[in-house]
Amino acid sequence: MNGSAPTYSLFELIERFGGEVVGDGSVRIARVATLENAGADAISFLANERYLHLLKSTAAAALIVGPTARDAVDRPRIVSGNPYLFYALVSALLNPERALKPGVHPSAVVDPGASVDPSAEIGACAVVAAGARVGARTLIGPGVSLGRDATVGADSRLHAHVAVYDACLIGDRVIVHSGAVIGADGFGLAFDGERWLKVPQVGRVRIGNDVEIGANTTIDRGALEDTVIEDGVKLDNQIQIAHNVRIGAHTAIAACTGIAGSVQIGRHCRIGGAVGIAGHVTIADHVEISGHTSITKSIAARGAYSGVYPFDTNRQWRRNAVHLRRLAEMARRLASLEEELEKLKGARGRT
Amino acid sequence: MNGSAPTYSLFELIERFGGEVVGDGSVRIARVATLENAGADAISFLANERYLHLLKSTAAAALIVGPTARDAVDRPRIVSGNPYLFYALVSALLNPERALKPGVHPSAVVDPGASVDPSAEIGACAVVAAGARVGARTLIGPGVSLGRDATVGADSRLHAHVAVYDACLIGDRVIVHSGAVIGADGFGLAFDGERWLKVPQVGRVRIGNDVEIGANTTIDRGALEDTVIEDGVKLDNQIQIAHNVRIGAHTAIAACTGIAGSVQIGRHCRIGGAVGIAGHVTIADHVEISGHTSITKSIAARGAYSGVYPFDTNRQWRRNAVHLRRLAEMARRLASLEEELEKLKGARGRT
Amino acid sequence: MNGSAPTYSLFELIERFGGEVVGDGSVRIARVATLENAGADAISFLANERYLHLLKSTAAAALIVGPTARDAVDRPRIVSGNPYLFYALVSALLNPERALKPGVHPSAVVDPGASVDPSAEIGACAVVAAGARVGARTLIGPGVSLGRDATVGADSRLHAHVAVYDACLIGDRVIVHSGAVIGADGFGLAFDGERWLKVPQVGRVRIGNDVEIGANTTIDRGALEDTVIEDGVKLDNQIQIAHNVRIGAHTAIAACTGIAGSVQIGRHCRIGGAVGIAGHVTIADHVEISGHTSITKSIAARGAYSGVYPFDTNRQWRRNAVHLRRLAEMARRLASLEEELEKLKGARGRT
Repeated sequence: MNGSAPTYSLFELIERFGGEVVGDGSVRIARVATLENAGADAISFLANERYLHLLKSTAAAALIVGPTARDAVDRPRIVSGNPYLFYALVSALLNPERALKPGVHPSAVVDPGASVDPSAEIGACAVVAAGARVGARTLIGPGVSLGRDATVGADSRLHAHVAVYDACLIGDRVIVHSGAVIGADGFGLAFDGERWLKVPQVGRVRIGNDVEIGANTTIDRGALEDTVIEDGVKLDNQIQIAHNVRIGAHTAIAACTGIAGSVQIGRHCRIGGAVGIAGHVTIADHVEISGHTSITKSIAARGAYSGVYPFDTNRQWRRNAVHLRRLAEMARRLASLEEELEKLKGARGRT
Repeated sequence: MNGSAPTYSLFELIERFGGEVVGDGSVRIARVATLENAGADAISFLANERYLHLLKSTAAAALIVGPTARDAVDRPRIVSGNPYLFYALVSALLNPERALKPGVHPSAVVDPGASVDPSAEIGACAVVAAGARVGARTLIGPGVSLGRDATVGADSRLHAHVAVYDACLIGDRVIVHSGAVIGADGFGLAFDGERWLKVPQVGRVRIGNDVEIGANTTIDRGALEDTVIEDGVKLDNQIQIAHNVRIGAHTAIAACTGIAGSVQIGRHCRIGGAVGIAGHVTIADHVEISGHTSITKSIAARGAYSGVYPFDTNRQWRRNAVHLRRLAEMARRLASLEEELEKLKGARGRT
Repeated sequence: MNGSAPTYSLFELIERFGGEVVGDGSVRIARVATLENAGADAISFLANERYLHLLKSTAAAALIVGPTARDAVDRPRIVSGNPYLFYALVSALLNPERALKPGVHPSAVVDPGASVDPSAEIGACAVVAAGARVGARTLIGPGVSLGRDATVGADSRLHAHVAVYDACLIGDRVIVHSGAVIGADGFGLAFDGERWLKVPQVGRVRIGNDVEIGANTTIDRGALEDTVIEDGVKLDNQIQIAHNVRIGAHTAIAACTGIAGSVQIGRHCRIGGAVGIAGHVTIADHVEISGHTSITKSIAARGAYSGVYPFDTNRQWRRNAVHLRRLAEMARRLASLEEELEKLKGARGRT
């Protein structure tokens, strides 16, 4: 992030990523920055009309804007149909991930029965059990634990302290953040009338390619078959995915959401934070669910779904909430009023 | 899980676990499987009537069914009063936990002042502090940290990266999954008018026997006395248990539930996922709470409790939610209508 | 915590912390304890009137009470304007944190390019990367991972298994509990019409002084600028703080709360457990939010806010909840009744 970083002209950027230059395309930029804090070596972007007023005052050398903001500014700019995506591409170009140091750190413990590609990096104090496999150019961070026969594909990055239980499978180009736990036992219990008996969890977790898994997210292994995370799924932090769940490709789920056992989620869904999804529910493709909603039955049709009690001042909330427990009674009284009014009107009519 | 695994005949199974064989009891099975995916070496089970239609098409060698499904199929079968429990017992028989490798891994750090039973397994990069004790046949997984004077009983399994703080006590046959934190400081703060002062948390966590604790679950130590998890309690992943809580024996709690300080929960409760329980609440024995419910006061009577705003399409939800903030007003208008109508009826009577 | 611990007379305590002694101020105490379980060497306290009845039966040697309870008991006592704060001060005096063992444990891996103050303690199997800095008298617990160029100030304590990503900054006198993850990538994704593209997260996490962070809490690094936790903030366990968030000084947040991207929270706020705060929301200073509330828009005025569907028996809840999905219709029917009644009354007037 210092001055010796490579720079790119706007012309070079549109050559790589498409779009159109308006103004001086030879301007060179070294970094991406927000409109407020961009310096003279930075390109910034406008992805949301609500920040339009910041365009005038930004010190950015250049901008990425959508077609509607094309003429809202006179600085050198790239006009793109999807300025946020364009920004992401430029940022990835300017901020490559750090290069790996191939090899096994002397403090790491790799079982002789494990197989580690020579181009992989195994960090300090990582533990790789017998039968585990680590693919090419994959990072196993400090203190990561890979269980027996666990497999991680190529070009993946497991950050410090990830735990992968025995036999779980992780694909290529997967990112797993610190503290995530892949393959702990599902919550399978049988009640014998007095106490709970553990049901062995003999399935695995299978994670496809291009998946990202957030910090401290947990994905339980299946009871009999596998818990499956399909290609391109993006999971934020502190998500809980119970046993036997399947999450369809390219679905994105925000933090703190909990998904109970045997839930099936479709492809290309967008699920907000702190959502709860009850066991055995099925959700169609292209479903959007607002944050904090509790999904208690299946959703068959694509679309947007919500459900949360709106907040208010504590005082107003108290006044209203008490009536929530009397809604059925209110409905009955309303119906009875309607009936009585009809009678009255009828009586008047007859008068 | 391969072909050389031991097999059992249906006769051998009922000899161990009770139940009755209908059909050919000499059929031998090597694994348990779901109705859909069972092969010719597998026994499957029907624990829920909603899967009844799968009985016809399953390729399972044998089945475990309840009395009502006794004649719903002609395959060799075991009839049990609790087919799910029977399946759990068979699965545990067929899928024993892996045998331990007694001893301390060379990369583990065991303080000379700690006491580790020779039959215990201490995994790679585990850290056992002074005064800590590990019982017979207990597994301390890779990277686990046991604080000073922490005690783990016999036949317990702490998976990779569990952290146990100083002086905490864990019983026999306890399973703790990766990333669980036992005994961090409770959230005890005193406000001096300007800033928060930390209240030392000098209690411990005491965990009984036959407890299971899920991945990334946290149980805080008590402020002055102990946080207590009684025998047979089952905790799913990402549960938060605050200081001074007591959870009664054989209570099961699903993932993502948060329990605030000094809550007392009875025995044999069943608490759903993402439930929140406010501080100092007391909950009776045999209480069931639905997922995502917020418990804000004590529950004295056994029974089932719920409370969550039902979800809807975003459009419908918007239309309804706005009225939630006007419920008190609606109630007032309803009462006023009733009064007026009474007057009108009275007036008519007098006309 | 045994008999050889230092003891203090009530006179010595008020000399340090203020307050007034009533009764025999030469009584010496060795520990703090609850009213129920205090022994003859303990001081206990009454911070909540609801425990007033326990004053009569306690065996405590002495008590800390507020002015209103000054004469509710005849034991030696300290009268303080804030008995809970006084208890905290006494408890901190009696329960000092354990002394550090300066130095690097032989099993720890400290990169030659890292800088560790000689008075710091680096625990077993901890990993400190190149460019990282650890200040004076700071504890880096067992298995902690400090990324490249990460900085921890003086007198801080990072408990076992904390993960700090590259370049993050932690101040002085900060406590971080086990399993917390500081600086994982924010959930930044751009959709290209088919799949999600990762947006590099090039900001950092900056944590001020006197902050406490609970077990398994996650704080994501900023997308372009820093995620900021100001001085004196107290975060309980399993809190999720997304990228670009700023939390104002001396705000306290209870467990399981999730804060979405770019949220700005003021100073001296008190936020309950399992609260959800939607992205880009701004919250004023001195705001209190009840547990389990979903905050979906900004709060400009100080005060207390709530919003949660009240729980009930499952049976009552079912009866009421169904009407929640018909509230808009109920409101319409109510308005129509009012109109009709007005007409009727008008008609009567004209009769």
